[in-house]
Amino acid sequence: MRLILLLSCVDKPGLVSRISSFIYDHGGNIHSLDEHADDQEAQFFIRVEWSTLNKENSLSEIKKAFSGLANEFNAEWEIRDKEKKLRVAIFVSKYDHCLREILWRYESGDLPIDIPLIISNHPDLSSVAEQHKIPFHVFSINSDTKLEQEKNENDLLNANGIDLIVLARYMQVLSSQFVNLYKNRIINIHHSFLPAFIGGDPYKQAYDRGVKIIGATSHYVTSDLDEGPIIEQGTARISHRESRQDLVRKGRDVERLVLARGLDLHCNHRVLVSGSKTIVFA
Amino acid sequence: MRLILLLSCVDKPGLVSRISSFIYDHGGNIHSLDEHADDQEAQFFIRVEWSTLNKENSLSEIKKAFSGLANEFNAEWEIRDKEKKLRVAIFVSKYDHCLREILWRYESGDLPIDIPLIISNHPDLSSVAEQHKIPFHVFSINSDTKLEQEKNENDLLNANGIDLIVLARYMQVLSSQFVNLYKNRIINIHHSFLPAFIGGDPYKQAYDRGVKIIGATSHYVTSDLDEGPIIEQGTARISHRESRQDLVRKGRDVERLVLARGLDLHCNHRVLVSGSKTIVFA
Amino acid sequence: MRLILLLSCVDKPGLVSRISSFIYDHGGNIHSLDEHADDQEAQFFIRVEWSTLNKENSLSEIKKAFSGLANEFNAEWEIRDKEKKLRVAIFVSKYDHCLREILWRYESGDLPIDIPLIISNHPDLSSVAEQHKIPFHVFSINSDTKLEQEKNENDLLNANGIDLIVLARYMQVLSSQFVNLYKNRIINIHHSFLPAFIGGDPYKQAYDRGVKIIGATSHYVTSDLDEGPIIEQGTARISHRESRQDLVRKGRDVERLVLARGLDLHCNHRVLVSGSKTIVFA
Amino acid sequence: MRLILLLSCVDKPGLVSRISSFIYDHGGNIHSLDEHADDQEAQFFIRVEWSTLNKENSLSEIKKAFSGLANEFNAEWEIRDKEKKLRVAIFVSKYDHCLREILWRYESGDLPIDIPLIISNHPDLSSVAEQHKIPFHVFSINSDTKLEQEKNENDLLNANGIDLIVLARYMQVLSSQFVNLYKNRIINIHHSFLPAFIGGDPYKQAYDRGVKIIGATSHYVTSDLDEGPIIEQGTARISHRESRQDLVRKGRDVERLVLARGLDLHCNHRVLVSGSKTIVFA
Repeated sequence: MRLILLLSCVDKPGLVSRISSFIYDHGGNIHSLDEHADDQEAQFFIRVEWSTLNKENSLSEIKKAFSGLANEFNAEWEIRDKEKKLRVAIFVSKYDHCLREILWRYESGDLPIDIPLIISNHPDLSSVAEQHKIPFHVFSINSDTKLEQEKNENDLLNANGIDLIVLARYMQVLSSQFVNLYKNRIINIHHSFLPAFIGGDPYKQAYDRGVKIIGATSHYVTSDLDEGPIIEQGTARISHRESRQDLVRKGRDVERLVLARGLDLHCNHRVLVSGSKTIVFA
Repeated sequence: MRLILLLSCVDKPGLVSRISSFIYDHGGNIHSLDEHADDQEAQFFIRVEWSTLNKENSLSEIKKAFSGLANEFNAEWEIRDKEKKLRVAIFVSKYDHCLREILWRYESGDLPIDIPLIISNHPDLSSVAEQHKIPFHVFSINSDTKLEQEKNENDLLNANGIDLIVLARYMQVLSSQFVNLYKNRIINIHHSFLPAFIGGDPYKQAYDRGVKIIGATSHYVTSDLDEGPIIEQGTARISHRESRQDLVRKGRDVERLVLARGLDLHCNHRVLVSGSKTIVFA
Repeated sequence: MRLILLLSCVDKPGLVSRISSFIYDHGGNIHSLDEHADDQEAQFFIRVEWSTLNKENSLSEIKKAFSGLANEFNAEWEIRDKEKKLRVAIFVSKYDHCLREILWRYESGDLPIDIPLIISNHPDLSSVAEQHKIPFHVFSINSDTKLEQEKNENDLLNANGIDLIVLARYMQVLSSQFVNLYKNRIINIHHSFLPAFIGGDPYKQAYDRGVKIIGATSHYVTSDLDEGPIIEQGTARISHRESRQDLVRKGRDVERLVLARGLDLHCNHRVLVSGSKTIVFA
Repeated sequence: MRLILLLSCVDKPGLVSRISSFIYDHGGNIHSLDEHADDQEAQFFIRVEWSTLNKENSLSEIKKAFSGLANEFNAEWEIRDKEKKLRVAIFVSKYDHCLREILWRYESGDLPIDIPLIISNHPDLSSVAEQHKIPFHVFSINSDTKLEQEKNENDLLNANGIDLIVLARYMQVLSSQFVNLYKNRIINIHHSFLPAFIGGDPYKQAYDRGVKIIGATSHYVTSDLDEGPIIEQGTARISHRESRQDLVRKGRDVERLVLARGLDLHCNHRVLVSGSKTIVFA
C-alpha cells in the first residue's frame, strides 16, 4: 500500500522526527518527504509518501494510530491511499477547451481521477460528454432558482460520492452556501494572471491596457470572488499584432494547461492551504 | 548613412507603396520594414530601416523632402540617423541593480546610447557613478522643493542635450509638469507585472496574495502613475518557499532585464506609442 | 478577396517599392507586410497580406500579372487566397496526443485547414478518427513493402488533393523518394530539442544525461533524418524528481503545442524556407 | 548555529527517521528537509537545514557524533555551518559578462561567498578586478606549460583555502590531473543548451542550424569535456532576424543568469552529485 500524509500545525522541534519514526515503526519506507516551515507564521507543513511493507495494517488502523500523534500536535491532517482515485465532477458552460483537456488527460491515464458526471447550466456541451460516455446533467440557473438548483446539484454530487469540483470555465457564480460545503474542494480556472484583471472579460481588459504578457490562474474557490488561494499560474507573450480574439485564442492554451496542472497537483495530494495561500509540494 | 523612419497615421491604401518608393527614389536600399495596421482603430504604423547609397543627400534634406509626403498623410513621424546615439540621463535613488545593468550594457557597447549624467535624490550611489566616470548630480527633493528642483534638473538636462530619461528604480514621483516636458521620453521600471499590484511595495502585495509568478514592467511615464504605455514585461516563477526578501531578490533579476530590454527597444527606435499602448517592432 | 504573397529572391534596391506598388496599382490595400533581408546571404524575403478592393481581378489574373515582376526578380514565390484552406493529411502510429490536439484545434476553427483523411501504419487510432468522422487508412509497412505502400499512399493523397502532410508522432521513416515529392510540405514533430538527442528514444537520452530542460521541435522533413529546417521549438523544465516516464508525459504537452504552432504558422503562410533554415513571419 | 546536512547512501527504511531523530536528540529544530529516493538506482539523497538551540555542541562535535550514523549507512555526507562562506576562485579569459555578474551579486550580498582571488590566462580583465579590489593573477598557458602552470595555480588556490573554482568563460581546457583535484568543485558555464552544440563556437553552430531557441548550461567539470553533471540550464527565444552576433549578445544574458544560479545553488549547499547527474534541492 502506498500512503500519502498531508499535515500542518504550529511549528516546534521534533515534528519530522516524530512523524518519520511513526512511519518507520509502522513498517513504512518513505519514498518522498517534503517539508516547509513558515518562519514568519511559525507554521509547519509536511507531505510524506511511503510504502507500507507490513500488510496487516489497514488504512483505517494507520489513521487511528496516527490520530494520537496528530492530536498531540493539534494538527490538520489527512492520510490517503495513493491508489484510491478522487471522484471529480466537472462544471462547464459553453467553452469546451478546458473540459476536453481534462477528459483527454483522464482517458490517457495521466490524471488519477474518476469523473462520474459533468454538470452544466447549458445544454451546449452534452455531445462532448456523450462522446466520452460520461453522464451530463443540465441545471439551468437564474438568480431566483440558484439556491434551489445548487441544492439539487449537491444532492447529485453526494449521491455520486464526489470529492472535488472543477469549474472548467463555468460561467456562473456559486453561492457562499454552496462554496462553504466544498471548502478547498472547488478548483476554478480564472482567465487572467490574478490579481490583474479581476472581474469581467479579462482579455478585453488586457487588450485595452496593452500588456505584453497574458496569463491564467487556477485557484480554490472561496466566497470572495477571484480571491481564493492560488494553486498554479501560467503566462504567454503577446504583441501589438494580436487582436482581442487572438488573446482569447492564445489564452485558451494557457487556461488548459494551468487548470490541468492545478488539478494534477490537487489529485496527487500535493497542495496544502494556509490561509489565503497554498503550499505546493510539486 | 543608415536611416530609420518611424511613422503613424490614419490607414489608407498605398501608404507602403508611397513610402518605399520615396526611399527608392532617394537612392535608398531598405534593410528592414515592419508595418502594422490596426484594423479596429484604422491606424497605420511603420518602421523602415534603410541605407542611402546616394551620398549627396544629407539627413536634413531627406527629412525636408519627406515632410511633403508626411503632411499629405497627416502623419506623426521621425527620421533618425542610426549612428547618432541617443543621449540618456539615468535617475536613481538607492537601489543599484538597474543602474549597474544599464552601465554594464552601455560600456560593453550593447546599447547605442551616451550617458552624460546620472541624477539622484540621494547621494548613496555616487560611488557607482564615480567607478564609471559619469557625472553624478544630487537633487534632494521634498514636497516643497519638488517643482523648483525639477526645474533645476530640467536646466541640467537641457544643457546636456538629453533625449531620454530612464528611471532606474527612482523612488520619487515626478510632477505632471515635468512629465509633460518629456512625453514618451521617460522610461520607468515598475517592480510588478502591471496592472497587478499597482501602488506601494508590490513584492509585499505579491507575497501576501500568494501568487506563483512575479513580474516587472517597463513603461513610458505619464501623469497617471503606473498607467503609461507598456513597452516590455517579464516574469519569474516563485514558490511558497520564497520569503518576501527572496521575492525582492528574484525580482531584481527580472527588473534589470525588463528595463534593459525596454531601453534597448526605445534606443533602437523600435517603439511607437498609440494612445495608451505601444507598437513594438522587435 | 484577402491575398497573401510569399516571395524570396536575391536582395537589391527597390524590391519593396516595386511589390507594394504592384499591389496598390491592382487595387490592393496592404494589411500587413513582413520583410527580411539576410545581409550575409544577400537574400530578400517578404510576406504581404492585402485586400483587393477591385472585384474584377481574379486570383489567377493577379498571379499572371505578378509573374512578370517575379520573373524579373528571378524569385521563388506564391500568392494564396487566404480563405482557401490547405488540405492536410495526418500520419499517425500509436500515440494519440498530437493527433487529438490537431483535431481539437481543427474542429474549434482555430486552424484554417481541411483534414480529408488520416493515414497510419497501425490500426490502433482508428477509433479516434471515427469519433471525429474522418476517413482512416491503414498502410502496414515493412522494409520490403515500403516503396510500394508509399506509392499507394501517394495515390490516395493525390486523389484527395492534399497540400500538406503532418507526421503526428508517425514512427516510420519515409523514403527519400517520397520526401522529395513533398518538399517543404511535410511537417514532423521531433520529441527533443534538436539538435540535442538526435536518434532513438530522446527522453531516455535526456533522462540519462540529467538535463534540466527538455524540448520538442517541429520541422520540415528532408531526406536527412532530423536535419530538416526547424519551424518551431519549445521547452519545459524538469528536475531530478522526474522519472523517464514523467519526461515522456511532460514532453507530450510540449510536443502537442510545438506541432500545433508549427502547423498554424505553415497553414497561415507564415513560413519561408531558406536552405536548411526557416524565415518565420509570426 | 544553522547547520546543513547533505547526505547520500543506498536507500532503506528508517533513514529519515534516524537522521531527524539524531537532529532532535542534539537539540536541533529542522527548518527545511528535502529528500529524494531514486527508485531505479535504489539511492537515497537528503538535505536538511536546522538550527541548533543547544549552544554547547560545536560543529566538530556534531560531525563526530553524526559520523557513527553515517558509517552505519555507508553514506557520503557533509555537514556545513550555514554562516561559513565558501571561498571561491574565479577563472576568466577575455569575456567580462559572467565575471561582472558574479561580482555584482557577491557585492550586493546575494551570494554567500568570499572571492579572495581571480585567475586568468590573459591580462585583459585586470582592470575589472582592480575596480573591485580583488587580487588578479595571470598564468599564461600553452600546451608545454600547462601542467606546470596548473601546479602553480593550485599552490595559489591552496594558499588561499579555496573551496570552489568558477570558470566564468575561461577559454582553456583544464588537465585531467587538475580536474581530479577538485572533483565536483569546479563549475563551468557552457554557452549552449547541452548536449546540443558540444565543441567549438556553439553560437555559430546554432546560427547555422537555424534553431529557434538558444541556451546555456552550468555544470561540474569532469575530465570528459562538456559531459559533467548539469546543475542548471536556461534558454532564450531567437528568430531569423538575429545575426550570429545577436545570438552571442542574447546568449550572454542567459549565460550570466545560468552561471549565477548554478553558483548560488552550490554555495547554498543545494546540489548533490549522483554519477553523471545532479540532485538539486532548489
